[in-house]
Amino acid sequence: MPGATENGNGGKISVALYLYKRLHELGVRGVHGVPGDFNLTILDLLPDADLYWVGNCNELNAAYAADGYARMKGMGALITTFGVGELSAVNGIAGAYSEHVPVCHIVGMPNISSQRNGLLLHHTLGNGDFNVYTNMSAHVSATTTTLTETAKAASEIDRVLKTCWMTARPVYIGLPTDVAMSLVDSSPLSKPLDLDLTKNDPETENAIVEEIMELMYKSSNTVIIADACASRHRVLNELHQLMDKTQLPTFVSPMGKGSVDETHPAFGGVYAGDVSREDVTKRIEAADLILFVGGLMSDFNSGGFTYRVERKRTVEFHSDHMKIRYSTYPQITMNGVLPLLLSKLDYSKIHSTPPPEISNTIPRRESLSNSTDITHAYFWPRMGQWLQPKDVVVTETGTANFGILEARFPKEVSHISQVLYGSIGYSVGALQGAALAVKEKFPDRRCILFVGDGSLQLSVQEIATMIRHNLKPIIFVINNKGYTIERMIHGMDAEYNDITSWQHTKLLEVLGAKEGQYKNHVVKTKEELEKLFTDKEFAKAGVIQLVELFMPMKDAPRALVKVGEITAKRNREGST
Amino acid sequence: MPGATENGNGGKISVALYLYKRLHELGVRGVHGVPGDFNLTILDLLPDADLYWVGNCNELNAAYAADGYARMKGMGALITTFGVGELSAVNGIAGAYSEHVPVCHIVGMPNISSQRNGLLLHHTLGNGDFNVYTNMSAHVSATTTTLTETAKAASEIDRVLKTCWMTARPVYIGLPTDVAMSLVDSSPLSKPLDLDLTKNDPETENAIVEEIMELMYKSSNTVIIADACASRHRVLNELHQLMDKTQLPTFVSPMGKGSVDETHPAFGGVYAGDVSREDVTKRIEAADLILFVGGLMSDFNSGGFTYRVERKRTVEFHSDHMKIRYSTYPQITMNGVLPLLLSKLDYSKIHSTPPPEISNTIPRRESLSNSTDITHAYFWPRMGQWLQPKDVVVTETGTANFGILEARFPKEVSHISQVLYGSIGYSVGALQGAALAVKEKFPDRRCILFVGDGSLQLSVQEIATMIRHNLKPIIFVINNKGYTIERMIHGMDAEYNDITSWQHTKLLEVLGAKEGQYKNHVVKTKEELEKLFTDKEFAKAGVIQLVELFMPMKDAPRALVKVGEITAKRNREGST
Repeated sequence: MPGATENGNGGKISVALYLYKRLHELGVRGVHGVPGDFNLTILDLLPDADLYWVGNCNELNAAYAADGYARMKGMGALITTFGVGELSAVNGIAGAYSEHVPVCHIVGMPNISSQRNGLLLHHTLGNGDFNVYTNMSAHVSATTTTLTETAKAASEIDRVLKTCWMTARPVYIGLPTDVAMSLVDSSPLSKPLDLDLTKNDPETENAIVEEIMELMYKSSNTVIIADACASRHRVLNELHQLMDKTQLPTFVSPMGKGSVDETHPAFGGVYAGDVSREDVTKRIEAADLILFVGGLMSDFNSGGFTYRVERKRTVEFHSDHMKIRYSTYPQITMNGVLPLLLSKLDYSKIHSTPPPEISNTIPRRESLSNSTDITHAYFWPRMGQWLQPKDVVVTETGTANFGILEARFPKEVSHISQVLYGSIGYSVGALQGAALAVKEKFPDRRCILFVGDGSLQLSVQEIATMIRHNLKPIIFVINNKGYTIERMIHGMDAEYNDITSWQHTKLLEVLGAKEGQYKNHVVKTKEELEKLFTDKEFAKAGVIQLVELFMPMKDAPRALVKVGEITAKRNREGST
Repeated sequence: MPGATENGNGGKISVALYLYKRLHELGVRGVHGVPGDFNLTILDLLPDADLYWVGNCNELNAAYAADGYARMKGMGALITTFGVGELSAVNGIAGAYSEHVPVCHIVGMPNISSQRNGLLLHHTLGNGDFNVYTNMSAHVSATTTTLTETAKAASEIDRVLKTCWMTARPVYIGLPTDVAMSLVDSSPLSKPLDLDLTKNDPETENAIVEEIMELMYKSSNTVIIADACASRHRVLNELHQLMDKTQLPTFVSPMGKGSVDETHPAFGGVYAGDVSREDVTKRIEAADLILFVGGLMSDFNSGGFTYRVERKRTVEFHSDHMKIRYSTYPQITMNGVLPLLLSKLDYSKIHSTPPPEISNTIPRRESLSNSTDITHAYFWPRMGQWLQPKDVVVTETGTANFGILEARFPKEVSHISQVLYGSIGYSVGALQGAALAVKEKFPDRRCILFVGDGSLQLSVQEIATMIRHNLKPIIFVINNKGYTIERMIHGMDAEYNDITSWQHTKLLEVLGAKEGQYKNHVVKTKEELEKLFTDKEFAKAGVIQLVELFMPMKDAPRALVKVGEITAKRNREGST
């Protein structure tokens, strides 16, 4: 096989295999994507780098899956084909860009001479322009490259993958069919990529840490808020050390949910501006210092821009800058600042106060209600009681993303959602990727999806990929007859928010699950839900399972109702 | 309801309604798309312009559907939401661009003040850039606009829709939620858009026509080839008049298939370079003059660039230029040239020779074979015998696009495929759009899809949209265990060309079809195929029907085998 031979030890190696070996070094094993004629030959080489092919049902789902995989394993990769494949994936890539997820998008391209001659190949726009798709992807990639010169290929691959890792954002590598098979020197592979994230100018870093310490010592009431970029830019260890050593009340944003140990005595719940629980809002408002780690303040992440993290009482920790009250420090990374702060702090000088008490208590009016309906107010805390340590919870943009805020997680639960970018259908693909990552690395963890019946329709076929790879997630399909999140914003009874009713309990079977290797559950009442949540076989997750969970059409989590009102008002009035 | 009142007669009308009324004027009734919070309010206004909402399962499928709809009705439209929606659709839009299909893509956007303030809204990239998605779409649109100023909105809409029609390519209209509801003067609507396609410089046009006539009179052996742009740029009437009056042998390219009456005595079959039937190739090669109408010479459309339409014996008719042998005439449109040619020609001076005889004859070795297997060589001519006049035939990129070349169509059959852009999964969405257009305008026509089991997986959910709108297509799912077109190019037995097996005969039911309103058929042998093709209930197409058609995994149509070899060679060798 050309390109697969002569690898290692200063020998020659094909460009494609060079790329694969670097991906392997970064933790990638399963590579997502869809075959196409410009990528077929490079698929042959995956096993030579100890990678394997996932084979998704379509490219958008593959991109979602690579994103989900990356969130669990640190890096994801997908391979698509020129034009038709890569453009189908681009919305998933844009989501990874928006949400800071490192995904390497490899695109199999026509060979160099076809490109130079501007041939009217299939998958082109018919105008001889072979750069147009790359240019489109550049808008949603940290960097792009098309490997047109074999001599530069290895260094370009290293540059691009390093950018992917450091920025935690997607990158794009165009790989012409001929260059992919050309041989390059393999010796750079003997040295791993330099991925040290902590390098700051020592003098500035020192000054910043001194200033933060000063503020912390003076404060009588400091709180910590962890947002999305705390996990995406890999400071969760430092964050937990800070919690352990200071016991400062620590909150998460909706996007930060799952990044902090919610059984920690310092954990104080979810802060989402005016959409938060009252005791949480009060606690944040009373603080005289906020350590805000990895902030990404979008509308749905901030209770519709009602966050109260005023600059005068806030220190912001970011991956590429820091802010202390009114000062900004560009090019200083929290990855350097946090370890230094941890090592220098005199913990005896820190005054901590107890956080609000967070538990999975079902509201009294719900548990006392005579209705058998499973409302959101009832479901999410009850579900929170059922969760186990180390579960991986994926929630869809829609009711689930808001409902999950009402569940307190056991220890080491991971949570995957797309609150900022909010592409419906994301969660099904993301679940496939996350479950594959779990199978590779943490086979004892359960993967649990909450998706609405409307969102499921966008990407349903990826359940077939889960079946193909013998993944065993539990899929809760919330059957509430359409796009409830849209109803909350506009058109409560409009036909455009309706969907056709599917027979959800036949999906697994139709999509390829074999007799005895799957299980369906239908849950329409609180009683049935209790039965399910006490079913030990169900909880074991030994096979792929689908739960059709009926909820009232117009019911929604508390937080969604509020955010829906704010969003509708903004759309309508043109005011901010 | 704001914006829906005060329309017509020099009154005021909302920007969205103005746009809708223009679309109505251009023949649009069903509007495809997926609801999202930035487009919900404009969906309310559709009925006010006598339009209706389709409601697709996802945006890529909606774009495919709008493309299929446009191919049947002259214009298609889809509405998506900012970012997540529009980017999901962009691959379908690129296909429409590549293949010259007029689709108007309307994107509901955040209101102007949110955009001006760079708010970190959901669906953004989190960087305050609200133009990035429009810039991405600009690469695959004839023109784009974002309606930020109410005062200019009506004239911008007119400009953009005119461009869409004239270029037969997609356009993009960004519609902020507030501007959409602002009122504009409705009086321009009293005058229809000027869409005259025939305007050329009279002197040049005359000279061109004289020169063509001269060449035709001198020729003893003229042939006509009709390619994709003959139908896309609306010269099929002129083309058929030319056939009628001259009886010149007329061929179609693969992309031109379906645009010419195949029962016409002058019809000579499909010319696809070296991939053609031998008698067709001979006939083309013997010609001393080729009238090549609407040419779009991609690899898969030209037998892998083996077309023999040398400039010295060819007149090329295009929508925006003409070529006569070695001369090019820019900005001269065939839409003007053809009518003038028809009116000026002295038909007594035209020498026509009989075309090759084309029929739906099953090759002898196939009909004599003892095997019960349904091969491609057997199936397509047999299917051709079964087709009825006016059928609408949709074929997927894959075996079906090549197989269909072996079927001779009855009168007035329309054919929809995507040979140049070749995005797998396209045909399922396109069928939905085409079937909806048929329901609106030609309710007696049948819609028939041929799709492989691999391609079906990409866009399967759109069958639910067909069910929702009570469409009654016949869907042939070719079950050949994976991506056969890819196998022909590379990886005949590779796992990456396998797919998971679905239970196809349960799909209609699972996706919402009601008892008695659908029918499944399974066909594994020639005998079963004969039974199906003589079943009158089946042929009536009174309900939606799915035929699972088993074919051997490694069998492929003759033309695909050849093109596959050529493509693999190009990918491998870097030669053209």
